[in-house]
Amino acid sequence: MTSTRERILATSLELFNREGERNVSTNHIAEALGISPGNLYYHFRNKSEIVKQLFLRYQTTVEAFLQVPNDRPLTWQDKVGYFEAILQSIWGARFLHRDLGHLLNQDEELQDQYREFVAISIERGLKVYEGLRSSGLLEASDEDMKALLVNTWVMAASWAMFVQSLVPNEKRSDELDRTLLRQGIYQIVCLEGPYLRGEAREHLEAMKARYGSSEGTIGLLFGELALTTVTT
Amino acid sequence: MTSTRERILATSLELFNREGERNVSTNHIAEALGISPGNLYYHFRNKSEIVKQLFLRYQTTVEAFLQVPNDRPLTWQDKVGYFEAILQSIWGARFLHRDLGHLLNQDEELQDQYREFVAISIERGLKVYEGLRSSGLLEASDEDMKALLVNTWVMAASWAMFVQSLVPNEKRSDELDRTLLRQGIYQIVCLEGPYLRGEAREHLEAMKARYGSSEGTIGLLFGELALTTVTT
Repeated sequence: MTSTRERILATSLELFNREGERNVSTNHIAEALGISPGNLYYHFRNKSEIVKQLFLRYQTTVEAFLQVPNDRPLTWQDKVGYFEAILQSIWGARFLHRDLGHLLNQDEELQDQYREFVAISIERGLKVYEGLRSSGLLEASDEDMKALLVNTWVMAASWAMFVQSLVPNEKRSDELDRTLLRQGIYQIVCLEGPYLRGEAREHLEAMKARYGSSEGTIGLLFGELALTTVTT
Repeated sequence: MTSTRERILATSLELFNREGERNVSTNHIAEALGISPGNLYYHFRNKSEIVKQLFLRYQTTVEAFLQVPNDRPLTWQDKVGYFEAILQSIWGARFLHRDLGHLLNQDEELQDQYREFVAISIERGLKVYEGLRSSGLLEASDEDMKALLVNTWVMAASWAMFVQSLVPNEKRSDELDRTLLRQGIYQIVCLEGPYLRGEAREHLEAMKARYGSSEGTIGLLFGELALTTVTT
């Protein structure tokens, strides 16, 4: 039997992802669960507490998959595993990615938490890249590898917001959102492309095709979706 | 003699950049100018109208420099020129970059305007990359060039927000902000690095050094600035 606290978190996550956090009040959440606002407040003082708890879970998920196995070298399949994990984690907490500025702006505690999360992720991400380099799947100087990691991070962290800002409300759907998030992984694969070697290089085209295409990004965002015909 | 309308725009831009748009009311703006709120409302119905006008000017600036000369091939100095122009335009309208989600969320007209701006910029950016390729400064398939352009765009558009979310309020200063924005250009130079050829390749290290270093980004964001000691 799922506890009320767990049900509040699950329902809030679902509503935030679907409607956007700023469009969902604690009253909406209580109503969706069929509980009284008082019961909800018993578990969470306010909406910020729910957001912080959901962020903590997101952080735990990400830190869990940003690991390098101790007992064997990394393979190109591991690379796909990381991409899939990134995609799932962004999709599962897309309300955070889409509206991070707003969420951080209204909560200093969340700011501190986020700062720590980014620092830890950058540190772990660097270990993953070092693991790929040791396995001969990536070739880059320390400097280029760090720049690549920062670029990969910013892309992963910003893509959902970028896409969000370009899709008109009336065209939004879960299916389109999923396709566009996959295009974000495509963009990251392209970022890494020039540095891949060995098996990872051999599977580069397959990895790209798995997530999208350049025409895909541009077509989705500026073709079908464009409201106005652009003439320059 | 500068018109009141111009003075309102200049002062608003300065205050928005310094304090953040959401912390500046039309009353603040009127007060800073020594005019009555009524006088301000005579020129702009509300703060959104001021933001939209400032966005339009930003858009005009960016579209003006995203041009390829008709009469000669592009040189690596042109590349530096584009970077400087990107840097200046982001710095000049940093309130937009830092808080874009918030600004777009509250104004559908601005959303449409932004969508058109991105579509035009992507189209022009592609022409710049094509120009660099024709001049032998860049080597990439059409597909890789489009992916590179989208990545460059997302980095340029998102960097200021990324950095903003990681610098605690009490450590913020114009000097630090400028240094961090320069690091954003460094990140873009690194993005393009593997595709550069000829003179652009020869000047790659100089271009990187002009804007920062990998240690620079990581040190600034996760070394000196980190609030907590991260242990993984």
